[in-house]
Amino acid sequence: MVGVSERKEFRDLAEPEAAHAAIASLDLEPDTEVVPLEKARGRVLAERVDADLDVPGFDRASMDGYAVQAKDTFGADEADPATLELVGEVHAGAEPEVTVEAGTCAEISTGAVMPPGADAVVIVERTDEHGANEIEVRTAVAPGDSVMFAGADIAAGARALGPGTHLTPREIGLLSALGRDEVPVRGRPRVGIVSTGDELVRPGETLHSARGQIFDVNSYTIATGVEEAGGEAVLYPHAGDDYDEMERLLVQASEECDLVLSSGSTSASAVDVIYRVIEEQGELLLHGVAVKPGKPMLVGRLEESAYVGLPGYPVSALTIYRTFVAPAVRRAAGVPEPQTATVSGKMAVQERYSEGRMRLMPVGLVERENGETLVYPVDKGSGATTSLVEADGIVEVHPDTEYLAEGEEVDVLLFSPDVRAPSLLGVGEDDPLLNRLLDRLGTPRYLPVGSREGLRRLRNGVPDVAVVAGPVERDVDAVDLGGWRREWGLVVPDGNPAGVAGVASLVDDDLRFVNRDSNSGLRTSLGNAVAELADERGVSRHDVVSEIDGFDRSVKASESPARRVLAGDADVGIGLRATADRLGLGFVSLGRQDVRVRANPDRTEKPSVDVLRAILDDSEEYAETLTGYDAA
Amino acid sequence: MVGVSERKEFRDLAEPEAAHAAIASLDLEPDTEVVPLEKARGRVLAERVDADLDVPGFDRASMDGYAVQAKDTFGADEADPATLELVGEVHAGAEPEVTVEAGTCAEISTGAVMPPGADAVVIVERTDEHGANEIEVRTAVAPGDSVMFAGADIAAGARALGPGTHLTPREIGLLSALGRDEVPVRGRPRVGIVSTGDELVRPGETLHSARGQIFDVNSYTIATGVEEAGGEAVLYPHAGDDYDEMERLLVQASEECDLVLSSGSTSASAVDVIYRVIEEQGELLLHGVAVKPGKPMLVGRLEESAYVGLPGYPVSALTIYRTFVAPAVRRAAGVPEPQTATVSGKMAVQERYSEGRMRLMPVGLVERENGETLVYPVDKGSGATTSLVEADGIVEVHPDTEYLAEGEEVDVLLFSPDVRAPSLLGVGEDDPLLNRLLDRLGTPRYLPVGSREGLRRLRNGVPDVAVVAGPVERDVDAVDLGGWRREWGLVVPDGNPAGVAGVASLVDDDLRFVNRDSNSGLRTSLGNAVAELADERGVSRHDVVSEIDGFDRSVKASESPARRVLAGDADVGIGLRATADRLGLGFVSLGRQDVRVRANPDRTEKPSVDVLRAILDDSEEYAETLTGYDAA
Repeated sequence: MVGVSERKEFRDLAEPEAAHAAIASLDLEPDTEVVPLEKARGRVLAERVDADLDVPGFDRASMDGYAVQAKDTFGADEADPATLELVGEVHAGAEPEVTVEAGTCAEISTGAVMPPGADAVVIVERTDEHGANEIEVRTAVAPGDSVMFAGADIAAGARALGPGTHLTPREIGLLSALGRDEVPVRGRPRVGIVSTGDELVRPGETLHSARGQIFDVNSYTIATGVEEAGGEAVLYPHAGDDYDEMERLLVQASEECDLVLSSGSTSASAVDVIYRVIEEQGELLLHGVAVKPGKPMLVGRLEESAYVGLPGYPVSALTIYRTFVAPAVRRAAGVPEPQTATVSGKMAVQERYSEGRMRLMPVGLVERENGETLVYPVDKGSGATTSLVEADGIVEVHPDTEYLAEGEEVDVLLFSPDVRAPSLLGVGEDDPLLNRLLDRLGTPRYLPVGSREGLRRLRNGVPDVAVVAGPVERDVDAVDLGGWRREWGLVVPDGNPAGVAGVASLVDDDLRFVNRDSNSGLRTSLGNAVAELADERGVSRHDVVSEIDGFDRSVKASESPARRVLAGDADVGIGLRATADRLGLGFVSLGRQDVRVRANPDRTEKPSVDVLRAILDDSEEYAETLTGYDAA
Repeated sequence: MVGVSERKEFRDLAEPEAAHAAIASLDLEPDTEVVPLEKARGRVLAERVDADLDVPGFDRASMDGYAVQAKDTFGADEADPATLELVGEVHAGAEPEVTVEAGTCAEISTGAVMPPGADAVVIVERTDEHGANEIEVRTAVAPGDSVMFAGADIAAGARALGPGTHLTPREIGLLSALGRDEVPVRGRPRVGIVSTGDELVRPGETLHSARGQIFDVNSYTIATGVEEAGGEAVLYPHAGDDYDEMERLLVQASEECDLVLSSGSTSASAVDVIYRVIEEQGELLLHGVAVKPGKPMLVGRLEESAYVGLPGYPVSALTIYRTFVAPAVRRAAGVPEPQTATVSGKMAVQERYSEGRMRLMPVGLVERENGETLVYPVDKGSGATTSLVEADGIVEVHPDTEYLAEGEEVDVLLFSPDVRAPSLLGVGEDDPLLNRLLDRLGTPRYLPVGSREGLRRLRNGVPDVAVVAGPVERDVDAVDLGGWRREWGLVVPDGNPAGVAGVASLVDDDLRFVNRDSNSGLRTSLGNAVAELADERGVSRHDVVSEIDGFDRSVKASESPARRVLAGDADVGIGLRATADRLGLGFVSLGRQDVRVRANPDRTEKPSVDVLRAILDDSEEYAETLTGYDAA
């Protein structure tokens, strides 16, 4: 099951610098291409562009007025204007049909060609019409006044833009001025993405969970990262674990792309197959890197392209892509790393580390009242997809670092230059009304870790708010922002076929129950109900619990037990009336519990906390839309 | 010629806040659209996405090893392992065909479905195979160890992503995990761009300079700005100044777009036509804003869309777009302004101002050795396209500001979030060898203002280096980085048909001459040659100059006089042997002049100055590729 290759990797892990060097040694650079001007935004100029014409191409009036021979105006002023004969007019976009001789002038529009003979323009505000053909000029002008000479803006032969120039609106403007409708730009490196592993299914296809299938996360995440780094991502059909198919796809990708990434499976057999293909069809430069995560990284050459194998877990794959591969794609594309791709902040908590290899630690960001950025470790296990969204980037922790102190300054490599700290960081109970309120905040982050864990985190000072449902065992120093009440109880199939009456039924009847985990406020309330029943019956709480089939069978979100009931996997689940109603299930009420939003006392002046406070004033309105809810 | 409308605008200019408010009152917001996951990068989620399935959808091994009943391992350790019967194996992506009873185990791969009966995984490293069917377990595990339960990552019903979420790689990853192959996103506002003015020609078309035509700059600049702000730009065919055609195009654009921008012409007649169409087909909310530039701005409604008329000059158009329109496009697209769209820096020089209306001052950026950003005003007249590329952004100078002091902190609204300070700011002589050297520097900015003006600017302390050709009248405190020599003289038609022999021919023969401007080192050297001739002849320098037809006819770039000769517009031009050879023209040498690269003494440690110093060591190699050049 565990292949030879995988054993080998542990023997001789490369240092991270060696992995950077190996990738840098690969040639990812595509050929130059020529794109239409309209498509050139964001691209990088491949070669110098010199002006091959003068801009403007003619001596041009830069104001509305009269084209004159400057010497005719010498000495003219308000008191003693010069009078000139009007001999014609010149409009923008037309060839002058008039010549300005001494003593004459021609009406001229901004942008029009200076007529022969004229060497200056008198602005219209300094003139008066005197009859049909006489213009009084009330100012003296010098040759060249209000005239933009041919080539004054850009002269033919001048260097206009250098190679490597990033094309933003203003450069596109300059290229237009030169009449360029096509632009030579650095090619975008083509990056082929081959996903492996029999368990992966592409989004949009049918998922068979019983067969252990999961959706392919890495192909899309990495493709998006490639596009963001200036590359062109090519997704190949999913390869599974079949050697011949994978070989065919890898060879095809290597013919069509500058770089091939494989990614997807965490299974040893898929890794083995990849390893064999690379060894047979190319050259393996490096297998395994001394970073956490990232041990299973491969670097090599395929027939016609470079190759990098990414780890299978989503956070690991994105971390390794971000740290090792994206910089190489950017270099090949000629696109500099955006300034916003890195931020610095202070550790919100202490973090110990002692594994003897570099750690690429996923972290989240949260802003203090004063706008300072705090950084906290996120570690849900690299198999979790949600930590992708809970983490904003990576802190590189060097092997000889024993710990990062609270308050220590760290640099965070963001997962994307577009990532920014959430407006609000909330933790705590999963609640349907809360979810609706959150929609009204701009880009909050809410981690439904449960009431108990939420309070623990609030105590540690990291989040802005914690949302707490049900009775609180150990309170925390916090500011109450508001809240609501919700009806909780037992969710049963529609019509309550088993006649569930309350907690006693769970004990006395043969019912498969599904609970929430012990961080949930629902579970705390249930625990109290169980304790009451134990008191009534004069037995221990443990005696009651041990009679409930599934008391320790806990699932994660507030709807999860109800969904198990709906799927027929359980007879009763803990839950909310609102959920039961929404899913068309029966409900046996066990009471109402408070849900309170508690703010970190250090963040009460943070703008998003203020906004949340205001939104909470409307919670009554939201409560009316959910059965079993009322404003506290 | 000057229309009623244009006169009207000066009467009652709106305050900038009123212009922002007028634009904000327009509805630019497009409908929500659904895009495939692969196209969702950079888009903004239109509505909340809740998980409609558990991720993972099954209890899953999170390590390679053996699926067991945890209780069978209780008490096991290295000294006293537990022995279990191996009853089968489970691979990732396959449905388990084995049940784990007490005393048994099943081989399991990372990601595989936990087989019925098993509640934990023992990692392979803590086991030994003992014969074909016996596994020794050297550690105790608890239920759930190395198992990721169904829904542990994301539970069905949980809030996954909120409305307004910017979709970066990690969010795309989460959406993939949920199996979403389509995503509801905020629509991109469609912005139609109608260009006006008879003088404009689209890049790629033939330009007739004699008719006063110029290439259309604004359509492409603004279209690029629209795309950058998250909109979709639609370029309509060029309208000219014809009322019916312009009306037809504006109406069509208003039917097809959320916002119509007109832009292009500076001519009063085109502005008049636009004005009439808006008044007849829609509603004009505002005409003229008290900002410099931007007086001619229009805001209103067309039949089915919003409308903004931008000024005609490129820098003015981009400035008004960036300041007033782009924020509205971003709001409609739901895209926040990138943090990089604004930088702060210190004024490099004092700037006086007293016009009584807000000034949107175009500025350039340059970095000091310590990385601090300096800001300097760029003002070539708003008609210049090159100031588009010399300016990095805008400083808003309020009407009551009398001056900005040197060293004063200012905020710069960048023309694009992708704009950054150039690596090197150079000024001075236009020179072909220099142009090639510059190609080796990453993103320098070089302003060919001539040697004299270059030295003046170096004296003011703004640029990093000045490039100076020919004799220097007034030196400046600077560090010499290196240089070369170039042969200069008179460029004549191939074969020198007029038999030009030297400066004397310009005086004595009937020749039309073209000079460089007085900032150019070429002109300074010519001035010296003229003075010598005057000495020889015993006349004044003025006497000599007045006999040269065109001594004061100066053009801008080093190649410009030669190009006039090539075009037959002149008989002789000042220039370089290298230019004459390149253009296939004749050349009469007048000598060699030094070209020296002089560094700002405060910037000698700046990285790009160091790189330039190193590149200059190779100037010999470059000199060999240009006739008349040698290393100094």
